[in-house]
Amino acid sequence: MLIGVPQETAAGEARVAATPETVKKLIAQGHTLRVQQGAGLDASVTDEAYAAAGADIVDRASAFGCELVLKVRSPDAGELALFKPGAVLAGMLNPFDRDGLQRLADARLTAFALEAAPRTTRAQSMDVLSSQANLAGYKAVMLGAFHYQRLFPMLMTAAGTIKAARVVVLGVGVAGLQAIATAKRLGAVIEASDVRPSVKEQVESLGAKFIEVPYETDEERQAAEGVGGYARPMPPSWLQRQQIEVAKRVAQADVVITTALIPGRPAPVLVTEDMVRAMKPGSVIVDIAAPAGGNCPLTEPGQTVRKHGVTLVGETNLPSLVAADASSLYARNVLDFLKLVLTKEGGFALPADDDIVTACLVAHEGQVLRQA
Amino acid sequence: MLIGVPQETAAGEARVAATPETVKKLIAQGHTLRVQQGAGLDASVTDEAYAAAGADIVDRASAFGCELVLKVRSPDAGELALFKPGAVLAGMLNPFDRDGLQRLADARLTAFALEAAPRTTRAQSMDVLSSQANLAGYKAVMLGAFHYQRLFPMLMTAAGTIKAARVVVLGVGVAGLQAIATAKRLGAVIEASDVRPSVKEQVESLGAKFIEVPYETDEERQAAEGVGGYARPMPPSWLQRQQIEVAKRVAQADVVITTALIPGRPAPVLVTEDMVRAMKPGSVIVDIAAPAGGNCPLTEPGQTVRKHGVTLVGETNLPSLVAADASSLYARNVLDFLKLVLTKEGGFALPADDDIVTACLVAHEGQVLRQA
Repeated sequence: MLIGVPQETAAGEARVAATPETVKKLIAQGHTLRVQQGAGLDASVTDEAYAAAGADIVDRASAFGCELVLKVRSPDAGELALFKPGAVLAGMLNPFDRDGLQRLADARLTAFALEAAPRTTRAQSMDVLSSQANLAGYKAVMLGAFHYQRLFPMLMTAAGTIKAARVVVLGVGVAGLQAIATAKRLGAVIEASDVRPSVKEQVESLGAKFIEVPYETDEERQAAEGVGGYARPMPPSWLQRQQIEVAKRVAQADVVITTALIPGRPAPVLVTEDMVRAMKPGSVIVDIAAPAGGNCPLTEPGQTVRKHGVTLVGETNLPSLVAADASSLYARNVLDFLKLVLTKEGGFALPADDDIVTACLVAHEGQVLRQA
Repeated sequence: MLIGVPQETAAGEARVAATPETVKKLIAQGHTLRVQQGAGLDASVTDEAYAAAGADIVDRASAFGCELVLKVRSPDAGELALFKPGAVLAGMLNPFDRDGLQRLADARLTAFALEAAPRTTRAQSMDVLSSQANLAGYKAVMLGAFHYQRLFPMLMTAAGTIKAARVVVLGVGVAGLQAIATAKRLGAVIEASDVRPSVKEQVESLGAKFIEVPYETDEERQAAEGVGGYARPMPPSWLQRQQIEVAKRVAQADVVITTALIPGRPAPVLVTEDMVRAMKPGSVIVDIAAPAGGNCPLTEPGQTVRKHGVTLVGETNLPSLVAADASSLYARNVLDFLKLVLTKEGGFALPADDDIVTACLVAHEGQVLRQA
C-alpha cells in the first residue's frame, strides 16, 4: 500500500505521525512509504533518517496523494483537498467534532479517529490519548518548574535550608499520575485530588497524599464509579464539598496542576478566581485542561499569564513540546492500529467484527459513522 | 544603623538583597530597615510582607540614602549618585572589575564585594558564589528539560519504552554538582568531566559517571590540584586529550551542561563548533558560563539560539530565574556577613584582623583596596 506521511501544519504542532522506526516496520510489511520533506524536523527527525529507513522523501501533494495517509491532527480544508477520494486516513480526528467528521465524510475518506478506541486491554498499545497524556503530565511539571521562582526539592545548604515545593495535582488520570511521578522525582511534596476514589491507591503508591472528600449519598457514590475509565460529572453537592477541601490545599500550594477533562465537554472548573486570589504570590498553575477551556476560568488557552500574582500556564499542546518522544509513542500507536486494517498481502481491509476498528471508524463511503 | 534595601534595576535582575526573614533579624538587632517599595515583587515578596517584618516601605532615594545599603548587583552611575558619601555598601560588586571598584571608591563608599570572601569553612554561610551557583545548577537542568524535546526519565508505556536522556555535565563545581543531582532526580543517565580529579568521588556519589583523562606529566598533575577550590588553567596537552574524551561523550549526549568558570578570566572553551556539529539534532546545551563568554563559542550570552540543529541556552542570570529562593539564600549570606561588621550597639565597625572582611573590602576612604 502507498502510505503518506505529511508534515503537520496546525499552529504549534511539532509532532509527526511516523518515525524512522515505524517507517522501517511498514516497509518490511511490504508497503511503500512517502514522507514529506521536513515532516519530522520539528520532532528532531531528519529527512536523512527517514530515507535511511527506506522512505521516499516527497513534496506535500505526493505525501497527501497516497492510498493511506497518517496524520497527527485532523486535516484542514486545504489538506482535505489534497486527498484522493476513497483514501484512508488515520489520526487524532476529534470524534466529538460533528462538523469536522462531516467534512471527512464529504471528502469520501475512510477515516479512523484513534482517540475513539475503546479503553480495553487489547487497545492499550494504540491508545493515543494515554500515550500523549502521559507526556503532557511530564511536561506540565517541567513548565511548572520553569515558571516557579523556587526549587522543587528541599535543599540543605550552608546558608540554610530551602523548603520543598508543595504541588497539588487535580485530576488523576494518566496525565495526573505522570505529573505526580515527575514532581515526586524532583522532590516536591504532593497532594492529589480526583472524583474517582479508585485512584487513591495509585496516588499513594507514587508517594503523594490523596485529598479525600467523603460521599454522602448513593447518587454521589454511583457517579464516582464512572464509565470507561473516565469520571462522570459529579452531583453539585459533592463538587461543592470537594471545592472546599481542594481550596484549602490550593491556598497553601506552590504549584497546582489541573488535569480534569471530560471527553466532548468543556473542562470542569476546579480552581475558581477566588481560589487563585487566595494563593501565595509567585505560585504557578499549569492547566492541562486548557485545550477544553481550562479547569480555571482565569486560564487563557495558548497563553501564560499572571493574575493576582499567580502565573497561569494555558499551554494547549503539551505533547508537542516533547515532540520527539510524543511522535515516537504516537507513531507506535498508529503502527499498532494499522495491524487491524492492513492485510498480509499489503492491502487494506475493514474487518467486520473488530470493536476497536468499529469504534475508530468515523467516516466511510460518504457517511459519518460515529454517534458521539 | 539605618539600613536600606533598594529594588535592583539591572536588566533581568529579579533578586533582592534582604527578605522579611533577614529584615526581622536585623531589626531585632536594633537596626532600622528601609525597603524600597516593590523591591521584592519580582522575587515573590510583597511590600506587606516586609512591613509585617517591621521595615519602613520607602521610595528609591530613601532606600539608597542610608548608612548601610544592601544590594545584589553593583550600583550603576545613577544609583551611585544616590548614596551618601561614607555610606557602607554590601553586594556582589564584581571584584575583578577594576573600573567598577574605582567608581565605588570615588563615591567614597565603604564597599564589600561578597564574592571575594575566602573559600574557608568560616566563610561558608556567607558564600554568595556557592549559594547562587547551587541554584544555577538546578535551574540549568530545568532549562535543559524545558527545551529538550524528549523526556529525562526512562518511561515504560503500553506503546513501548522511552529511553532516559543522556546528560553530560562539564565542570563539577557547586553548579555542576547540583546539575548532576537534579538531572539524576529526573532520571537521566549522567556523565561528568572536570580538570580536578578530586571531584571524581563526589560525581560518583551522586550516581553519575566520571569521564577520566589520565595525566601524563608532573606539570599536568600539579595544575590539576588547583588553588582555593578553583581549577587553574590546565596545560594545552592535557586539555587536548580531555577534549577528545569529552567530544566522544558530547556527540552521544542529549543535554550538555557546561559550568567551567575561572574567576576574573574568560570562560574556557569546552565545546567547540565541531563538537556541536557532531551532536544529534534536537540536543540542548545549557552554558552556565555564558556570563563569562560561555564554554561554547556558539553560545550567545543572554539568548537561546539554535545552531547545527542544537539548542544553545546562554542565560546569563540563572539564579534570578529562581529569584525567590535565590534572594532567600543571598539575604542569609548578607546577614551572616554583616555580623562581622555590625557592633552589638547597632553601629558599624571595621574589624582589624578578620580575613573575610579584609578579603571583601574592595573600597574604603576613596581607595580601591583589593588587588584582584
